[in-house]
Amino acid sequence: MRATTIHAPGDIRLSDVPDPTIEAPTDAIVRVVAGCICGSDLWPYRGANPIEAGSTIGHEAVGVVEEIGADVRTIKKGDFVVIPFVHCDNTCPHCLAGMTSVCDHQGWTESGQAELVRVNQADGSLVATDGLPDDALIPSLLTLADVMATGWHAAVSSRVRPGGTAVVIGDGAVGLCGVIAAKELGAERIVAMSRHEPRQALAREFGATHVVAERDDAGVEAIMDLTGGIGADSVLECVGTDQSMKTAFRIGRPGSTVGFVGAPHGVELPVRQMFVRNVGLAGGMAPVRTYLPDLLARVVDGRIDPGKVFDLTLPLEQVAEGYRAMDERRAVKVLLRP
Amino acid sequence: MRATTIHAPGDIRLSDVPDPTIEAPTDAIVRVVAGCICGSDLWPYRGANPIEAGSTIGHEAVGVVEEIGADVRTIKKGDFVVIPFVHCDNTCPHCLAGMTSVCDHQGWTESGQAELVRVNQADGSLVATDGLPDDALIPSLLTLADVMATGWHAAVSSRVRPGGTAVVIGDGAVGLCGVIAAKELGAERIVAMSRHEPRQALAREFGATHVVAERDDAGVEAIMDLTGGIGADSVLECVGTDQSMKTAFRIGRPGSTVGFVGAPHGVELPVRQMFVRNVGLAGGMAPVRTYLPDLLARVVDGRIDPGKVFDLTLPLEQVAEGYRAMDERRAVKVLLRP
Repeated sequence: MRATTIHAPGDIRLSDVPDPTIEAPTDAIVRVVAGCICGSDLWPYRGANPIEAGSTIGHEAVGVVEEIGADVRTIKKGDFVVIPFVHCDNTCPHCLAGMTSVCDHQGWTESGQAELVRVNQADGSLVATDGLPDDALIPSLLTLADVMATGWHAAVSSRVRPGGTAVVIGDGAVGLCGVIAAKELGAERIVAMSRHEPRQALAREFGATHVVAERDDAGVEAIMDLTGGIGADSVLECVGTDQSMKTAFRIGRPGSTVGFVGAPHGVELPVRQMFVRNVGLAGGMAPVRTYLPDLLARVVDGRIDPGKVFDLTLPLEQVAEGYRAMDERRAVKVLLRP
Repeated sequence: MRATTIHAPGDIRLSDVPDPTIEAPTDAIVRVVAGCICGSDLWPYRGANPIEAGSTIGHEAVGVVEEIGADVRTIKKGDFVVIPFVHCDNTCPHCLAGMTSVCDHQGWTESGQAELVRVNQADGSLVATDGLPDDALIPSLLTLADVMATGWHAAVSSRVRPGGTAVVIGDGAVGLCGVIAAKELGAERIVAMSRHEPRQALAREFGATHVVAERDDAGVEAIMDLTGGIGADSVLECVGTDQSMKTAFRIGRPGSTVGFVGAPHGVELPVRQMFVRNVGLAGGMAPVRTYLPDLLARVVDGRIDPGKVFDLTLPLEQVAEGYRAMDERRAVKVLLRP
């Protein structure tokens, strides 16, 4: 099949690789209808994560089940499915407690920017739509594989509550989905910290009531001004750098929780400050499967439209251009059609 | 008055110092009936915190109000009061949100091992008992100034829940009070991590259902064995060292929260592990005043008896011996009578 591979920082190619096959009787093979590029794919692209030259990349996809293993019971060939980027059995104690991203049978989507994906624990991992979805729904369904569920996890972890003030740090797709989540969970004031005009506009469309373009000291000051010097009830940290995390702990009000979902890069948590100000930290890799049924219903009902984060659609052949567009911040998020 | 002063690591003296006086109209002066030595007093005693030579030390006390400022309205001369180690107005937005330890008018007990204490924001800070308490209640009332409320904060922050498994790291007075708190909040299994037989016995008396004497890898293994490999629902971190914190994040189950209340010393939080395992951190300096009315009722009703953490009572003159006894772990906690 054709699949996206990474060979060195900045070196993204569409390559011919062997088709994935059923390796365990609980596996399924899904033919990708749409995949996309994640902000986290930019870490290796920019040389910030180690690269195994020639390995496939991409972990977000939706598609149609093409083949199932002998032990797959509920998922059928022909089902249109959302593939959570972390696979899970959905029956182990962690899954039953809602922590499907830490499943005892954890697996991963390894070729989301490709024609085919192997899914481990297909019955546990996959959620099928009711029939083939309308093409217009595809982008929003695709966000459920990662970014919308991840933004949701930030909001849940930071305990967004009705009537509260939520600040979203990060205007990438996850941050923008965090705005949607904060709104759905009832936050009255939603502040998007964003310096980019088109992203600010999308944040407002998604429910942000305020935009703060400043960063660091000036950004903290702006949030403190907005909250009467008290700080935010919830902070959604959707970046994962030391700078953004430090800001998060300064703007959360005492007793609040920073919800973090960006894989931490170079972060040193300010434990002393957390202690003195009683600002906690929760979150981590999102339990996508846990949130999927609820989020799928919200998308199908038209209640949320996270697919708007895709501002560039390319054929899979142009995946390298997709990476460049995201790296240069010309695109928020790139959808790829095989 | 006579007050305990610290001059260098290991150098504790009872000195003559000027009486504290009303400095602001919201102050009160309390004559100490009982004070005590805190585990955190051992940090400077052992040279782990900087020392201002000759400064008073001690932040836990109960006593009788001797003098009030012109603006003090609800607290009266002659009231027997518990003095939270952090003073607060109990009216600012942080106080109203339950975060009295981060009050806009934060103040501190600066001479708890002495004859007199100045209390800032007396109306906000102090909680008076209904008449003079029976002498037998004094030790338990004294724990409400810090350790019982701090153990409670660990339990609340780690979201102890009915039927759950709570692990308490640390067998000092705060950890032992954490056991009481976990029991009161309904934990079904309470594991005290303790290597010291008398403390293990007290932990069991307070409600611990299990004791784990091992530390580090062996301790983690013991907790995993106890929880069927899942980890604890709640971890109360009542020490504050890097070693104990690292253990805490290994034994909390995915989705759980480590409640920390020991002032962190040399702690580097394992942010990557927290992310991957979705184990959060909450807590900090305990909002003692917030919990006081509830805890006072539990003590007066005889429902809890945290005063048992005091296993040595000395006259104030022998405060230096009290420090030695705690430093050498001959005593869990030392009560001082002026």
